Amino acid sequence: MECSYTPRELRWAIRRGDWRGPTAGCCPGHTQANLVIVPARYAFHFLLFCQRNPKPCPVLEVLEEGKWEPRRTAPGADIRTDLPKYRIFRDGKVEEAQGITEIWRDDLVTFLIGCSFTFEAALIKAGIPVRHVEEGKNVPMYITNISCEPAGPFRGPLVVTMRPIPGNMVSKAILVTSRFPAVHGAPIHVGDPLALGIEDLNKPDFGDPVTVREEEVPVFWACGVTPQMALLASGVDLAVTHAPGHMFVTDLLDEDLAYF
Amino acid sequence: MECSYTPRELRWAIRRGDWRGPTAGCCPGHTQANLVIVPARYAFHFLLFCQRNPKPCPVLEVLEEGKWEPRRTAPGADIRTDLPKYRIFRDGKVEEAQGITEIWRDDLVTFLIGCSFTFEAALIKAGIPVRHVEEGKNVPMYITNISCEPAGPFRGPLVVTMRPIPGNMVSKAILVTSRFPAVHGAPIHVGDPLALGIEDLNKPDFGDPVTVREEEVPVFWACGVTPQMALLASGVDLAVTHAPGHMFVTDLLDEDLAYF
Repeated sequence: MECSYTPRELRWAIRRGDWRGPTAGCCPGHTQANLVIVPARYAFHFLLFCQRNPKPCPVLEVLEEGKWEPRRTAPGADIRTDLPKYRIFRDGKVEEAQGITEIWRDDLVTFLIGCSFTFEAALIKAGIPVRHVEEGKNVPMYITNISCEPAGPFRGPLVVTMRPIPGNMVSKAILVTSRFPAVHGAPIHVGDPLALGIEDLNKPDFGDPVTVREEEVPVFWACGVTPQMALLASGVDLAVTHAPGHMFVTDLLDEDLAYF
Repeated sequence: MECSYTPRELRWAIRRGDWRGPTAGCCPGHTQANLVIVPARYAFHFLLFCQRNPKPCPVLEVLEEGKWEPRRTAPGADIRTDLPKYRIFRDGKVEEAQGITEIWRDDLVTFLIGCSFTFEAALIKAGIPVRHVEEGKNVPMYITNISCEPAGPFRGPLVVTMRPIPGNMVSKAILVTSRFPAVHGAPIHVGDPLALGIEDLNKPDFGDPVTVREEEVPVFWACGVTPQMALLASGVDLAVTHAPGHMFVTDLLDEDLAYF
């Protein structure tokens, strides 16, 4: 599923219908983003939910009512056509779609939220193993016993990803990912899964289980599935997200997001 | 103007009318905050302005419509009575007030925004001189030629504070303040004032000029006056802020805000 397009070329290929697959591995070095679209009347509370829970919900860009061009992260792009697959949540039902131009409305507000691909690239560059990449799996995700700070109708548990890290590399893994607060930043927990209410690492709530070796410690990062769960639990009458793995590829370089 | 109250005691003294002065030097080690209150219909765009301009507008807490207790930063406090002096902007006029209970409405949304007292305490603790404190003056503030990213009706220039730092301490000053992104964080510029459109350091737009010695470099940090200017330029029909120097004193410890 690797591609050698530039972000702009990939978005054009998607818009033309020539690329419909997931975006993992696409445009290495460029930042990919989670997508959340809600009607304007929910926008303040959703943005506030993100402000109160910055580790799972790091906001990269917000497009005001009716705007579809993310001019900060991808000038010229169209958020309605440039993701390979969308999920539309309406009246309690979910459907997948190849584009959302037909359902677009002038009151829709778009949020682009940082995703873990960026810090995983940084980990790999630093020589730290990323097990689910090595094993060709989806990252394991777990619903924790930690509640997010609610805002308006948005509430729910913190969801985390887990990567097993050799004990002698945990420090470096923390330092490396601390550089990127805009894409979940430093781990929220190191060690005992039970402290987060996770009883069995082999039974993730989403994604696939991965091998944890004897000399490794489970390390947990906040996950972008958190805002999606809060969105679905909120009872909003219309919302759009990316389909899992089918992200929005921006023009930003991962290094543009480094805090230091 | 020093006080030895705890934050809770100070807020009670203010509420009873026993303390009406500025809060500089009060409750050392505890975080003070800028106050901005706007009607709910402006809240999304004001929060978005802060999200797009995080260095001048670091949000510490947002109180939803009609809420007056900042339960994250000062449980039990009342935002309507616990600041020593307010400014009320209404229909193009400004008035100062000792409290705002009488004008309170259920649609008001409150923003508490980080202030530079926190990082100045960190500079002083690190042995770095803070000139305006040494000289007993207000920090010099300058309107720059840099525009903030607008959001809805909120737009305006970036305002900065300036502190002259000895050349051999600039690195440490940057590292020390980088620890506190929630209170303006690292400097936005080191050196030549003209690069920011500042023609004469001796003529600040707000505050007082301070001595810059030969071995010192002017160092510029984003300033909390930025959101106030954007607020006033926006044409909102009602807004409340703290009066300059009369801040909201929270229960947070400055160290609680450290990123690392």
